[in-house]
Amino acid sequence: MDFHYDDQNIFAKILRGEIPNSTVYENDHALAFHDIQPQAPVHILVIPKGAYMSLDHFAAHATPAEQAGFFAAITAVCAMSDVGSGFRAIANTRAHGAQEVPHFHMHILGGRPLGPMLAM
Amino acid sequence: MDFHYDDQNIFAKILRGEIPNSTVYENDHALAFHDIQPQAPVHILVIPKGAYMSLDHFAAHATPAEQAGFFAAITAVCAMSDVGSGFRAIANTRAHGAQEVPHFHMHILGGRPLGPMLAM
Repeated sequence: MDFHYDDQNIFAKILRGEIPNSTVYENDHALAFHDIQPQAPVHILVIPKGAYMSLDHFAAHATPAEQAGFFAAITAVCAMSDVGSGFRAIANTRAHGAQEVPHFHMHILGGRPLGPMLAM
Repeated sequence: MDFHYDDQNIFAKILRGEIPNSTVYENDHALAFHDIQPQAPVHILVIPKGAYMSLDHFAAHATPAEQAGFFAAITAVCAMSDVGSGFRAIANTRAHGAQEVPHFHMHILGGRPLGPMLAM
C-alpha cells in the first residue's frame, strides 16, 4: 500500500485543536475521545497523534513509542470505562471496512452486549 | 481487571502445537492463522504468543517487543492478503464483546464490503 495522508480530515483538525472534542485520555502519542454519534453506552475513539491513515499504515510505520502510547491509551480508556463485562475494539479500514475518517482510529464499544461480529 | 489466563483454551493448544492450524505468518511474539469458520474471503486471526486473555490485558502488560511483534504480524498479514480495498480489524472482549476464545486475538476480515460496524 501507498499511504497518502489527508491532513484536512476531521481527526487531524481535532489534533490541531481546530475543532473541539470530548477528551477521555491523552498522552504524548495518542488521544482518546467520545464518539459524537455513540452506538453503545461506551463508544470511545482511540487515535494516534501521528499522521497514520489506517491500522495497516500504523502497524507498518509507527515507532515503538507510538505503539506503546497507543496501547497505553487503550489501557487507560478501558480502566476508566464500564467494560468489565466486555467490549469490542474495531478498526475499520478503507472502503470494505467502511472507514469514515482517513486517520487511524480504534472504536472501543461497550456497556451492553454488542451482538454478532458482522452484520452481514 | 484481574486477568486469569486459562492455558487450556484452543489458541494456547495451537501455540503449544497440540492442535494444528493454518499458519499465515509467525514471528517470535505473534502468530497469524486462518479462522476455521471464515466469515469473509479474508478471515485471519492474529494472536500474541504470550498468555494474554484480551486486548485490555495485552495493552496493559505486553512488552515493547510483544507490541512490535503483534504489529509486525498485522503488517505481514495485510501485505499478504486481499485487503487493498479495505478490511476490518475486530477484537472481541469478554461477554459483551462475544469473545469466544479467552486468548487475545484480532480478527482481520476483508475481501468484501463488511457492512455496518455493529449488527445491533
